Amino acid sequence: MSALDASPDARRGDFEIVPPGSRFFALPSPFPMKRGGVLHGARLAYETWGTLNAARDNAILILTGLSPNAHAASHEGNPAAGWWEGMLGPGKAIDTARWFVVCVNSLGSCKGSTGPASIEPGTGEPYRLRFPDLSVEDGADAAHALVRALGIERLACLIGCSMGGMTALAYLLRHPGGARSHINVSGSARALPFSIAIRSLQREAIRLDPDWNQGHYDETRYPESGMRMARKLGVVTYRSALEWSGRFGRVRLDSDRRHDDEPFGLEFEVESYLEAHARRFVRQFDPNSYLYLSRSMDWFDAADYAPDAQGDRVAAALASIRIERALSIGVETDILFPLQQQEEIAEGLAAGGADARFAPQPSPQGHDAFLVDIERFGTAIGGFLAG
Amino acid sequence: MSALDASPDARRGDFEIVPPGSRFFALPSPFPMKRGGVLHGARLAYETWGTLNAARDNAILILTGLSPNAHAASHEGNPAAGWWEGMLGPGKAIDTARWFVVCVNSLGSCKGSTGPASIEPGTGEPYRLRFPDLSVEDGADAAHALVRALGIERLACLIGCSMGGMTALAYLLRHPGGARSHINVSGSARALPFSIAIRSLQREAIRLDPDWNQGHYDETRYPESGMRMARKLGVVTYRSALEWSGRFGRVRLDSDRRHDDEPFGLEFEVESYLEAHARRFVRQFDPNSYLYLSRSMDWFDAADYAPDAQGDRVAAALASIRIERALSIGVETDILFPLQQQEEIAEGLAAGGADARFAPQPSPQGHDAFLVDIERFGTAIGGFLAG
Repeated sequence: MSALDASPDARRGDFEIVPPGSRFFALPSPFPMKRGGVLHGARLAYETWGTLNAARDNAILILTGLSPNAHAASHEGNPAAGWWEGMLGPGKAIDTARWFVVCVNSLGSCKGSTGPASIEPGTGEPYRLRFPDLSVEDGADAAHALVRALGIERLACLIGCSMGGMTALAYLLRHPGGARSHINVSGSARALPFSIAIRSLQREAIRLDPDWNQGHYDETRYPESGMRMARKLGVVTYRSALEWSGRFGRVRLDSDRRHDDEPFGLEFEVESYLEAHARRFVRQFDPNSYLYLSRSMDWFDAADYAPDAQGDRVAAALASIRIERALSIGVETDILFPLQQQEEIAEGLAAGGADARFAPQPSPQGHDAFLVDIERFGTAIGGFLAG
Repeated sequence: MSALDASPDARRGDFEIVPPGSRFFALPSPFPMKRGGVLHGARLAYETWGTLNAARDNAILILTGLSPNAHAASHEGNPAAGWWEGMLGPGKAIDTARWFVVCVNSLGSCKGSTGPASIEPGTGEPYRLRFPDLSVEDGADAAHALVRALGIERLACLIGCSMGGMTALAYLLRHPGGARSHINVSGSARALPFSIAIRSLQREAIRLDPDWNQGHYDETRYPESGMRMARKLGVVTYRSALEWSGRFGRVRLDSDRRHDDEPFGLEFEVESYLEAHARRFVRQFDPNSYLYLSRSMDWFDAADYAPDAQGDRVAAALASIRIERALSIGVETDILFPLQQQEEIAEGLAAGGADARFAPQPSPQGHDAFLVDIERFGTAIGGFLAG
């Protein structure tokens, strides 16, 4: 059996939620982690679309944000719509008739790749907080190992969205020559204090929930309120005030949807929207995994790769990357990964010699625009890939 | 004894925190509340600076944000610096050598005015959730009663900051002719869904804390973690990403200030800053009072006062206000009360015939800029008052 078709039947942790039709890649074992420690018998869940050509030069790798799984779009093995369904498929912006597309579930996630919810070899128990410190770089290294195992020397394009934008930069910094081109979607070269503060509060909400219990929860005692709060706070920062003003205004819930018996219960549509998002999320994501991935984003700093200790180290690190073409795209209404961060990426890559384009979009939807404003993002990404 | 010098010795609730040197105004009893119910024996804490002239036409009333007390600046009765110390005093922007300045603690607060933490007459127990529904309008009506009791027919200027900007508009809408001029500081004519969402999460954090106990906490069992979370979330939205990038960057805490034994504990300066803010707040504000005041902001909508049901009802309501001059001031980096809301106020008041000026400021500090960027705000406010 090839490492690319590792057994999907290994015992799973209670909080691992793996989409049907996933494939599994057995990572080299032991797999060394950037901040210390190793993983034994770890794997990545991944999915593919299209066909790798004989020259092996038509591959695109997609690195995701914090919460998505590898199911970016429907395929034969799983006809359900994926998280980027409008973007990916035959004839779409990322045209799977032309490209061989791989999407990987991040290392440390709970959607099929090894993470804190996975069973730790030798113990038969979930890792929980025994999982080693997770860095964005570990996700990049793991994804790179998968790409090489697929027989791809050099990606035609490396695409990273949100957290995946960080992972993509880590990939390019640590694996020179790994891609001919790069699309950074609402990403950043390092976390700024506003984003760190938001994520810190999300983690605190989970940690404060008595049912988190230092990571030792189970199905019957699960930190539901902490996860709900973390998700709601996330959604607040994923969208934009502008979009919500137009979408919800000050519309009240109908009386039959209100909880008037509950003091200070839901009253406005926007509160109900947050509640619905939280409900869909809480039991679908492992709380410990959330903590690990969230913290890895705070830690990431491209400046760590600057050739010199002086000057603008982020710019210097980005300029050390050698790629032919790049697109850095984002939106004006993004408060979590503000537009200047995408501009910084484009300028840094351009300074390194890339034909790099910064493409600010007027989408009102905030950070999540890349998931919903397929018209604008698809046009920009499709145009870049066709070029 | 005059209603203006009500006894400060009435029994206080455990969570009422009254600055020394406060004066107390006994509200007319029963005091009717907008959404129903009445208060018996209620009072307002207030402080004054300067001297009311013989014509009684040099009075300025200051209405505060959610959390401040009436101690806006030092005076003989309390030499401690107030929350607007740089703005208010002899020779300062709000020149107490010229103006008779009154600052009132909002009805429903816990800083000396009657609120959920106060003892309910007849029961000997704090109101807690038996306090009637609180509206911004109730605060406006109570402040108006104080002003009239002080012998002031018409304020020279009504100043409202943040929540107080809403209260000030309610004052002008419900008490026509109540002021010759108005300064609205980082205020809004109604809550928009982003702000509602943030406040909803703050309230949820408090309500989720088991020690909130449906409002029945005490000194030994106090919803500390809920209040900490609410305050941190508040501070995140009171400041700006821009300011924090310059101020904290990615600076780490020294090892002796970190809690490395605590999983996912504090690591960055920005996290420690939030923690310090939360610590200073939690036992200094009554949780139930916070819930009531927070919700009153969500409810406020100037459109309720529109003469017609059609068209832009906020604009129409604002245009129904008759004042001579107005200043609406705010900052570009405010995400909680965005600048368009201050522009809307200026335009609405101008449509009503006021000489109304919109004064956007480039302060980087976000919503809290009026508290800290005294140079810019003092210049604008002082200039307006001198005019």
